[in-house]
Amino acid sequence: MRTDKKTLIVFSGDLDRALAAFIIANGAAAMGDEVTMFFTFWGLNILRKSKKVKAKKNFLQAMFGMMMPRGPKRLGLSKMNYGGMGAMMMKKVMKGQNVSSLEELLATAKEQGIKLVACTMSMDVMGFKEEELIDGLEFAGVASYLGEADEANVNLFI
Amino acid sequence: MRTDKKTLIVFSGDLDRALAAFIIANGAAAMGDEVTMFFTFWGLNILRKSKKVKAKKNFLQAMFGMMMPRGPKRLGLSKMNYGGMGAMMMKKVMKGQNVSSLEELLATAKEQGIKLVACTMSMDVMGFKEEELIDGLEFAGVASYLGEADEANVNLFI
Amino acid sequence: MRTDKKTLIVFSGDLDRALAAFIIANGAAAMGDEVTMFFTFWGLNILRKSKKVKAKKNFLQAMFGMMMPRGPKRLGLSKMNYGGMGAMMMKKVMKGQNVSSLEELLATAKEQGIKLVACTMSMDVMGFKEEELIDGLEFAGVASYLGEADEANVNLFI
Repeated sequence: MRTDKKTLIVFSGDLDRALAAFIIANGAAAMGDEVTMFFTFWGLNILRKSKKVKAKKNFLQAMFGMMMPRGPKRLGLSKMNYGGMGAMMMKKVMKGQNVSSLEELLATAKEQGIKLVACTMSMDVMGFKEEELIDGLEFAGVASYLGEADEANVNLFI
Repeated sequence: MRTDKKTLIVFSGDLDRALAAFIIANGAAAMGDEVTMFFTFWGLNILRKSKKVKAKKNFLQAMFGMMMPRGPKRLGLSKMNYGGMGAMMMKKVMKGQNVSSLEELLATAKEQGIKLVACTMSMDVMGFKEEELIDGLEFAGVASYLGEADEANVNLFI
Repeated sequence: MRTDKKTLIVFSGDLDRALAAFIIANGAAAMGDEVTMFFTFWGLNILRKSKKVKAKKNFLQAMFGMMMPRGPKRLGLSKMNYGGMGAMMMKKVMKGQNVSSLEELLATAKEQGIKLVACTMSMDVMGFKEEELIDGLEFAGVASYLGEADEANVNLFI
């Protein structure tokens, strides 16, 4: 089997786009590819712990933190979300079709050794501290992304 | 002329993003490239027949089917859609500038032999049956996409 | 240092996505890469002069021009914009963290010799004339993009 490298920038924090990103990433890893996912801007919400973690923030960062969803269970759809109803419908249909949930896809990504990188500049802007994000992440910036993208044969921005 | 391969994941079902996808795909095909477009999630709406087709669905799938646009003529803009007014304006301006409509771009894509693939997992989730989508499609999953992306030199997620 | 080429299609005119595009582009240029950014559809708003420029337009194009933001300072966020409040908050937090503003990133891109290309077909549709856009741009279509993407090793659609 040929082994290639793939990188995905996960900019979006929408449930539907996050699902697409993890389905592609897990598919590639299952085929033997090395995969790196870079979470930036809203994409960091996917990596937040579901419980509130105390962390030192300024006023605006505290507001961002309060207003944005904590973790995969709380994400909305990019379209037709209707205050969460759409996301709930989507999850119910997925379950009925035996499609993995985002939480399960994230767990599989870790099991498969997919490298999950949180963008440090976005963390600074959003005011997210390492202890607010799930375990098993790496922390890096754009130079690290570019170095990996140079080695990969498929690079997507999601 | 060098012949390369391009793949596009069409995740979005917005008129503006669909236009961008088909303009790039048709441009590449016109230059002699092999092109594959993978339609997933909202992107499947672009491939729906404009007439309602009877198909067996559960309640939530039937609701999805009803709420989502059927085919290229009914898509909205990602921004400034204003309940369809924006899309109408965009189409009118495009016509005035002799830019092809999405329906025309889709027909050209078929004529040029662009491979149009509907994502089967998304079809399961959304509850779309093959008979509800236009003719001339292939049906495949993420492994098929990854195989093609490995052979391509440009891979975009739209 | 290895020198590669990168292309970015900047389709979005949202502040957050524009920031991501310029951070990646400037990072690559700083590492010695050749970088081309293609601005299309809403992405053209990033390149508009902040002052109104007189230009011959039809009624619909004049409406588009009036309704869309002129330049980097007036862009909104793709999420949680709340009529501009979100964008203002984001800019304030960025300043506090010493992250460059979009205007500064655009200036750096020019200084680093990043090629900024405005999509002529989108300009026709939106009714933007060359004199309404900032100086130092090139003007080209999809064939030019595809030619450059063929030479690049990373191609993103933002």
